[in-house]
Parts: sequence; C-alpha cells; structure tokens
Amino acid sequence: MIRFYNGRLLTMVNGVAITGDEVWTDGDKIVYVGPYRSPMPSFEREINLDGNVLMPGFKNAHTHSAMTFLRSLADDMPLQEWLYEQVFPREEKLTAEAVYAFSKVAILEYLTSGITANFDMYFFYDAFVKANIECGFRTVMCGSMNNFDPDPTQLERDFVRFNQVHPLIGYRLGFHAEYTTSLDRMEYVASLADQYKVPVYTHSSETRRETEECKKRYGKTPTELLESLNLFRYGGGGFHSVYLTESDMDIYQKRGVFAIINPGSNLKLASGIAPVCKMMNKNIGLAIGTDGPASNNALDMFREMYLVSVLQKLSNQDASACNGEKVLEMATVGGARAMGLHECDTLQEGKQADMIVIDMHRPNMQPINHITKNLVYSGSKDNVKLTMIAGKILYEDGKFYVGEKVEDIYARANAWTRKIMEG
Amino acid sequence: MIRFYNGRLLTMVNGVAITGDEVWTDGDKIVYVGPYRSPMPSFEREINLDGNVLMPGFKNAHTHSAMTFLRSLADDMPLQEWLYEQVFPREEKLTAEAVYAFSKVAILEYLTSGITANFDMYFFYDAFVKANIECGFRTVMCGSMNNFDPDPTQLERDFVRFNQVHPLIGYRLGFHAEYTTSLDRMEYVASLADQYKVPVYTHSSETRRETEECKKRYGKTPTELLESLNLFRYGGGGFHSVYLTESDMDIYQKRGVFAIINPGSNLKLASGIAPVCKMMNKNIGLAIGTDGPASNNALDMFREMYLVSVLQKLSNQDASACNGEKVLEMATVGGARAMGLHECDTLQEGKQADMIVIDMHRPNMQPINHITKNLVYSGSKDNVKLTMIAGKILYEDGKFYVGEKVEDIYARANAWTRKIMEG
Repeated sequence: MIRFYNGRLLTMVNGVAITGDEVWTDGDKIVYVGPYRSPMPSFEREINLDGNVLMPGFKNAHTHSAMTFLRSLADDMPLQEWLYEQVFPREEKLTAEAVYAFSKVAILEYLTSGITANFDMYFFYDAFVKANIECGFRTVMCGSMNNFDPDPTQLERDFVRFNQVHPLIGYRLGFHAEYTTSLDRMEYVASLADQYKVPVYTHSSETRRETEECKKRYGKTPTELLESLNLFRYGGGGFHSVYLTESDMDIYQKRGVFAIINPGSNLKLASGIAPVCKMMNKNIGLAIGTDGPASNNALDMFREMYLVSVLQKLSNQDASACNGEKVLEMATVGGARAMGLHECDTLQEGKQADMIVIDMHRPNMQPINHITKNLVYSGSKDNVKLTMIAGKILYEDGKFYVGEKVEDIYARANAWTRKIMEG
Repeated sequence: MIRFYNGRLLTMVNGVAITGDEVWTDGDKIVYVGPYRSPMPSFEREINLDGNVLMPGFKNAHTHSAMTFLRSLADDMPLQEWLYEQVFPREEKLTAEAVYAFSKVAILEYLTSGITANFDMYFFYDAFVKANIECGFRTVMCGSMNNFDPDPTQLERDFVRFNQVHPLIGYRLGFHAEYTTSLDRMEYVASLADQYKVPVYTHSSETRRETEECKKRYGKTPTELLESLNLFRYGGGGFHSVYLTESDMDIYQKRGVFAIINPGSNLKLASGIAPVCKMMNKNIGLAIGTDGPASNNALDMFREMYLVSVLQKLSNQDASACNGEKVLEMATVGGARAMGLHECDTLQEGKQADMIVIDMHRPNMQPINHITKNLVYSGSKDNVKLTMIAGKILYEDGKFYVGEKVEDIYARANAWTRKIMEG
C-alpha cells in the first residue's frame, strides 16, 4: 500500500473542486480518498504531497505512438507532400522491432506529461503491447482496418485476443477512415459492433477536402455515411471531428459518439479548428488527443488542453468561450469515458490508481490563485512530479521506472530511425 | 571562468546550424566558442554537456512581469470585463513592495523557460529593478507614459537614470498606447527620441476595435498616426501588431520598426493572429513576447514559439507556412535586436554569456532527428537544464540560484496577493 498525504485532491468526481488531502492505494487500486483517518494500515511508502495536487492522470484519446521516429523529420511542408513523400514511404519500412523501439519513446513522453493511458491506432500491435506491458503503461488500441489489409476478419480476432491479453491492455473496434475503407468493409465493422454490442471509432471529418470528397462519393457527410451504415449503434468516436455540420453533431449527440479532438495536429497541418463550443452546447461527449508525433510534434496534454480552450476563444471571437475547467474534464474524465476506461476516470475508492502529482512549488503555479484554471492556462510538463499507473510509480522527479534505462530506449530508437532513413 | 564542453552549439550566428562543442566564459562574457583547444586556462567549473545543446537564451520581448498576481484570477471572461472589473481595480492597489514581490515570481518562471532577458512595461520601476538585480536577471524596461501620469517629463528622467543604474538594466523610450496618450504627449515622446536619437516602443494594433477607433479619431491607422508624429525616426517597436495594413507594414519596414508579437495573449483574449508571414516576406524585424501573466497565463517562450508558427499555418491554410527555424531566430536574435541587447543575441566571443542548456536526454527530443525544428515544435520547459545570465548560473536541474529561497519568494507573493484581493 502507498499513502499520499498533505496534498490537495482534485478528484474530478463532481467537476473540478479541490477536496480532501489523502489517498491510499493497494495493488492497482485506490482504496481510500479523504481526510486523515486512523487507524492506518502499514504502508510500503508514505508520500508527503507538501500541498501539491493529486489528480487523475490525463487520457490521450488519440495518438499513433510509434510515429516518434518521424518527429521533426517532416515539418513545415504541405500536407500532401508530408503524407506521400515523408510519412508513407518510411512507414513501409517499419518492422515489429522498430514499432516496439519507437513506442517506448512515446511512453516516456506520456509519463512526463502526466498521461496515464492512451488510445492508439497503428500497426504491429503485438510489438506495441509488449512495449506497454514492459513499461507498465496502460493502452487501449483501436482497430485501424482499411482496404490495404489482406484479411479484414483479422479485426475480430484482434478484438477478441487483445481484450484478454493483460489488465493494462484494451482494444476497441475501429477502422482507419471512410476514405480508405470500402463500404463492404465498413459494413463488416458494423456487423461486428452489432455482434459484440460495442462502440466503433474512426478518423472522421479531419479536413475540408476529406468531407467534400465524401459528399461527392456518397452524397453524404462522413458522419451521415457512418450513421447510414449503422456503425454507431453502440456509440464510439470520431477522431478529429473538425468539419461537422449541425446534422452531424446531432448524430453524435443522439448516438453518444465522442468527438475526440486534436488541436495541435489540426493547427500544424493547417486543417482547422473543431467546433468545441457548439458540441459542448449540444452535450456531446468530448475528449482530447495529441495525434501522432509526426504531426504534432509533442505528446503533451498541457499544450493540447491550452489549445482546446484558446482556439475556441479565437474562433468564436469571445474571450469567455470554452471554460478552462471544462477542458480539464475533457482531458481526464472525458478521455477515460471515450476510451471505455471507466475505472480510470476519477479519484474514488475502487477505481484504478492512475494518478499524477502536480508540483505547486514551481513558479508557473504561483501565486496560488485558482488551481484548475492555472493547470489549463499555464500548466506544463515542468509541473508533473509523479505519474502512477495501476498503483505503480513509473515517473517521479524527472526519473523513469519503466524496467530499463532510458538511454537504452533512446539508443534503440535512434538506431532503428537511422536504419529506416538510410535503408 | 566556466567551461562547457562535449555539447552541441547552436550559436545563432548564421541561422540555426549546429557547430562546435565547447564554450568558455569569463566574468559576464563569452571568451571562446569552438572545438577543444589547448592549452586550457584554469576553470572554476567544467560542465560536461553530454550532447546537450548550448544556445543563446530566449528574449521575452514584451511582458508585464508583476502581473503574476492576477494569473488565473480572471480567466474565461470577456475582454472589457477582464480589464475594467478584474485588472484595473486591482492594479490600483499595487505598491512598490507588491511589484517587487510579484516580479520575482515572474523572474523564476522566465528562468525555467530559458528566458535570459525581458522587455517589461509596468509601474514602480525602482522596485522592479531591485528584484532583477537581486536575482541577477537582465531586463530592459519600456516607458509606459500615458495621460494618467501626473508629469510626462518623468519619462526623460527615467530614461537617463535607469540606463545608468546597473549593467543588467536598460530602459527604452515608450508610451502605453495611442488610445491612452494625448497627441501632445506623443509629440513630447517624439521630441525625446529626436533629442537622444533612440527608438520608441508602444502597444499598437492589438485589437480590431482599437484600430477602428483610432481611424475614427484621427483618420489614420495607429501606425500611420505614429509615423505622422515622426515617432519612429530611430526605429522602435509595436507590441502586438495584429491588425496591420499593407501600408502599416511598409512603414514598419521603412523605419526599421520591430513587430513584437504575442500569440498566446492574442489568442486568450480573442484578439486575433498577427500577419507574421506577410511581415517576414517584407523583411520586417520580428520578435516574440509572452505579454503579462494575467492574459497568457504562462511566461513560456516554448509555447509562444510554437504558437507563432502553427497559427500562421492555420491562418494561411498552408502547413508549410512560417518555418520553425525562422521562429527560433525571432525568439533569440530577433528579440535581442528589438530590445537593443546587441551583446546578448548570439554565442560569439565577446558577447554576454546569456546562455541556456537544452536537455536532449528527455523523450520529447528523441530520436534526435532535427534539433532546431524539435525545439520549436516539441520543446518545453522540461528541456531547460541550465539558464545562465551574464556568466552566472541562475537555474540548473530544476533549482534556482537567485539569492534567496524560492519558498520565501512564493510566500511573499501569496501574502501580497491576499492583501490586494481582500484590501
């Protein structure tokens, strides 16, 4: 058991109030939240929070972790050139070992940003699972089925297998996007959703061009198309969700589909700004993702939270738009629910001990005026003092506890990057 | 003398090439830049950079440091309410002691973000100077004269006095803005600029409303008005510079006026996006500021650099717009030149030793593909390993060396904040 005491608890149970000062964990779970209580059990470690904030970890609800190898290799170029000349030809050279190497670099960065789970879409999932289990990181993988897959039924086998592989690992039904997946294959995904009564996730409405081309092809927006295929019968999510019509948003609302937005990536690739305020007004579920490091390039939920809010202020021409505290909910509770991690959303007894400590003794949190606004508008990786997943401390005071030396992880990733670039 | 070795030097001398691996300082100056050389003098300290990047510190070219007391106290509200209900009434209660207390919090945050000098506009400059000298921080103050000053000629006395007070302190002629300063008073500033042959700085063209009202009042844009008053005969700068016409930009170009842009503040207050690409094309001098912590709320040049670039990609609908490396130049060399700190712009022999160490052993810099793009697109405070000003190390490995305990600085700032809020 581990005891955290003398802190400020941001439980996220009912919004963003700060209450209580003590949390106990046992194994992978939170077993007590509240004020000092006696008698106390014997703890293997007691951590004096010294006024720091203990809160649920951030949930990175859309990413492509292994793309760290492309970080800062293809910046400042047009989208098509980026995709067809930089990204695709290099991804063709990927191996399982390379994905394993690159994913570990991403996991380290998640830990520095207080991210305790991610929702990942990529290839070589066995290698990716190995990297996560070795580090102790929590991941939910998303099916990325498309027309290039030799056998679409692999999706069902992956769904069944990966959901049973390890407590830290999950898998959700998904496909890459309507523009890379045939109607037949999307109908097959819908049939699986029906069979298992589960949600479906896909890239949707990321760019104007994509939505225009969908309308030309099908006479429907991407969302209308997915709805017509009955893909969202058990909910799900649309990654990006930038170009949504009123009718699209009504479908999201009616079906309980989450809009999983990626402001950093959408800015850097000049895609646009998702209509977050409109979706908030319609009570649509919202979550935040970094997208992959090739297009962001950081994997930093502080930057994403900040962007979600200020881009709404800009696009609505209203400095009061998009309350920062709503954004904090998106990044924690919203993300957990979008990914189906209902045991990882809040600090409550019985929940998974996926928690972070925010250092209030750093100048960007001083003076202490309004902690939750401060987290969103001036918080940074510099404030992440500790990251715990399933009751295990994986990151503390700048050091990593992920089963091997970080310099070995870096060396492996650099070697594989060189091999792919030169090979 | 201090020796840095075994690093990567980003000198910023001719753009952003990485060359050499060794820098020596003596007193406040850089005395050697290049490869290993013998014989070596005796050093008081030798720092193994272990592959990390040594580069000039960032220059925060527009801020209001003491506004830390308002950080996170007035977020998510309309601009007018923010200014008239939250900011102005509280600023009226400020004292010199309070400004001293609040400025030190800002200085600590600058150090965590690798900022080695700022260009500050506020009140109680004697108290501000004291805070900077005690910490060892470099500051250039900007005159903030306006109609509320009892005696406009104080500007000249401040200009003369503060430029002689200490090697770390500078002062430039300036006034708050055309909308708070009468024609008479602006003409007086122009006469001082003429007398001393020096540049003039002011807030200009921050919001659409401000520029429209100026046109109504004077039949001219703010820039045209300032030009007609001959204020820019020796150059200067416009803080914000969001709403500039082609003709305004031509005046900037012709007069050597710097556009000192503040993307974070302009987003949060829903003001807009400065036309950075257009100004780059016209070869206008560009620099970056955080603006004050009431409107940003962080004092973080990594966030500002990132925003400068990605907001251009968004507003130009072109992912190749605004090369990240140009932004790195704005944040270092551009800022130094805008503020008149010509001895603090690059890593070269004879320049001031205002330098930072960027930690490459953090996951957001891995794998090592393209260091300068990486700094702009995924760099963060987490990468600042050391900040040196005038040859003194003020921040290293998360710890501050500013003459007093940071907890004492925090306690004083919190006490003054409570006094102002409750008083």
